[in-house]
Amino acid sequence: MVEIAPLTSFDDLRARLRQLPGPNEAAAEAALAHQAELTKPRGSLGRLEELAVWLAAWQGRHPPRLERSLVLVFVGNHGVAARGVSAYPVEVTAQMVANFRAGGAAINQLCGVAGAELMVVPLELERPTGDFCVGPAMSEAECLDALNRGMAAVSPDIDVVALGEMGIGNTSSAAAIGAALYGGPANWWAGPGSGLDKYGLAHKVAVIGRGLTRHAEAFRDPLEVLRRLGGREIAAMVGAILAARAQRVPVLLDGFVVGAAAALLHALAPAALEHIQAAHVSAEPGHARLLERLPLRPLLDLDMRLGEASGAALALLLCRAAVACHTGMATFAEAGVSDTSGAPR
Amino acid sequence: MVEIAPLTSFDDLRARLRQLPGPNEAAAEAALAHQAELTKPRGSLGRLEELAVWLAAWQGRHPPRLERSLVLVFVGNHGVAARGVSAYPVEVTAQMVANFRAGGAAINQLCGVAGAELMVVPLELERPTGDFCVGPAMSEAECLDALNRGMAAVSPDIDVVALGEMGIGNTSSAAAIGAALYGGPANWWAGPGSGLDKYGLAHKVAVIGRGLTRHAEAFRDPLEVLRRLGGREIAAMVGAILAARAQRVPVLLDGFVVGAAAALLHALAPAALEHIQAAHVSAEPGHARLLERLPLRPLLDLDMRLGEASGAALALLLCRAAVACHTGMATFAEAGVSDTSGAPR
Repeated sequence: MVEIAPLTSFDDLRARLRQLPGPNEAAAEAALAHQAELTKPRGSLGRLEELAVWLAAWQGRHPPRLERSLVLVFVGNHGVAARGVSAYPVEVTAQMVANFRAGGAAINQLCGVAGAELMVVPLELERPTGDFCVGPAMSEAECLDALNRGMAAVSPDIDVVALGEMGIGNTSSAAAIGAALYGGPANWWAGPGSGLDKYGLAHKVAVIGRGLTRHAEAFRDPLEVLRRLGGREIAAMVGAILAARAQRVPVLLDGFVVGAAAALLHALAPAALEHIQAAHVSAEPGHARLLERLPLRPLLDLDMRLGEASGAALALLLCRAAVACHTGMATFAEAGVSDTSGAPR
Repeated sequence: MVEIAPLTSFDDLRARLRQLPGPNEAAAEAALAHQAELTKPRGSLGRLEELAVWLAAWQGRHPPRLERSLVLVFVGNHGVAARGVSAYPVEVTAQMVANFRAGGAAINQLCGVAGAELMVVPLELERPTGDFCVGPAMSEAECLDALNRGMAAVSPDIDVVALGEMGIGNTSSAAAIGAALYGGPANWWAGPGSGLDKYGLAHKVAVIGRGLTRHAEAFRDPLEVLRRLGGREIAAMVGAILAARAQRVPVLLDGFVVGAAAALLHALAPAALEHIQAAHVSAEPGHARLLERLPLRPLLDLDMRLGEASGAALALLLCRAAVACHTGMATFAEAGVSDTSGAPR
């Protein structure tokens, strides 16, 4: 059991990024060697083979295990939402938390199919972050608190985490973070989110542009970008990714807003994303742009743009398939199947 | 219960292609209307929503049902395999059937994850088809027999069929079919299959080229292309797709060789593929070229190239997720979630 002490400051976070554990090379090699014996042409299961080796390497064991899959959904409210940057009213954030609790949301059904546990973590919904057009979204203390909430949600008895979020207005935060980290105008990073029309999107772009102008002096520091333009759920996801690494829990990222959290970590320390797979690329146009820059190749491309970890939950199904093949298939020798030399083994 | 009489001739098959049932528009409309009420932005589940509507339309009922998913793997041996066009010896075909029966293959594990039944249909493995370099692969009687074996494998109590194949040498048949139907040289359609090196691939291309030259006069008739360049498992898949349509069973296609079977049907009657989804695009380069021409947009792209319906079995997981969301989610009214107008409904 790895003890993860709460972060005490941004500098503490930076210090931990210098002590990231690497993959377990022996477990990865054992997985690769086992795959070469299974009754299939080498490499023919493609990314399923990659997933089995990835799980072994980052869980630090061979064979990899998938007994406990956790879908972790952080929820936050955004001050900027009051400017009408979403197709939905801000009340929907809390209403959707109730829907998650009652089992009525998409992610509840997807967890059922994937055999995953769902943990929903609402973060002070009654106290939205500050409007980034007029000031920082969070104080350092608020940001640290959200980071620590995220870190505390991951435990080492989990075999894989699917990471997602919900929060009316949070694609505006994600787009602002993309622009702050990588440059480019707001309209290159902003998209329709939950369903803005072109007028709504133009307004959203203008709002994001205001935020970018207001905070431009801070873009060199990714933690300041998080504090000024982010949100509690984004900070919590940064914390969760970090805690998962320390506890040897591989992470599947959901969509655009999760990608923004990952991009902040990547900007701080590129190696911080090595235990991660991008579950999917969403229909929100900024997401593909983020993934190119990390760079992460998404497992799925299904035109989804819901959030709630919905894409990450689908990737759990791929992980399940990968582990089932890896651990359940016969070897050439066991099955009496000839290999490429023609000799039965 | 729809009675499907065995095909008596190629002309009989052509006649049935003029009587294809269409989708159930009322079921599709009911699915679309229900989706608009569910607690998510419209369209935000992307292709999962498409799958739910597709299943409803072609099953002819709303809500769609996924109680019985069938993975159907046809297996054949190819005369051309004796020319060394595969990385594996021809004995592997029968050895893999034994492996399927013993539960040791990839598809067995994937069926377990997907909750699907597996039916493996070996087609006279002890009597390979003729070598297409020197004559037709099959007589019309042999081809009809294989078509009928495929038709008989589908029954109307199945909710969805995932269609796949196994057969040493059969990517050579598929490549030859692609070239015969759409033109282009053999090296544009042929790929490494189960793992040829560049010398092996050059030999395979030469062998396919010989077959194309030998049968070029028959390329205008897709059924002659099937008979001369195909194989029993390819004919059986053509029959299975046809029988599924008549019995209102939606079909998921696996990889390149399944794609060649679908392409033959498409050349006979483009509407014959309307009840189909392409489960994935395989790493075998000819597959993407086939899919572009049908045209079918694959659900998955995971660098897989195993066959055995492995990609189609993964797409069953997506269907399961689609139906779970479609049937399990709360509506805006049930959950008390506000819609885009801001009014609780």
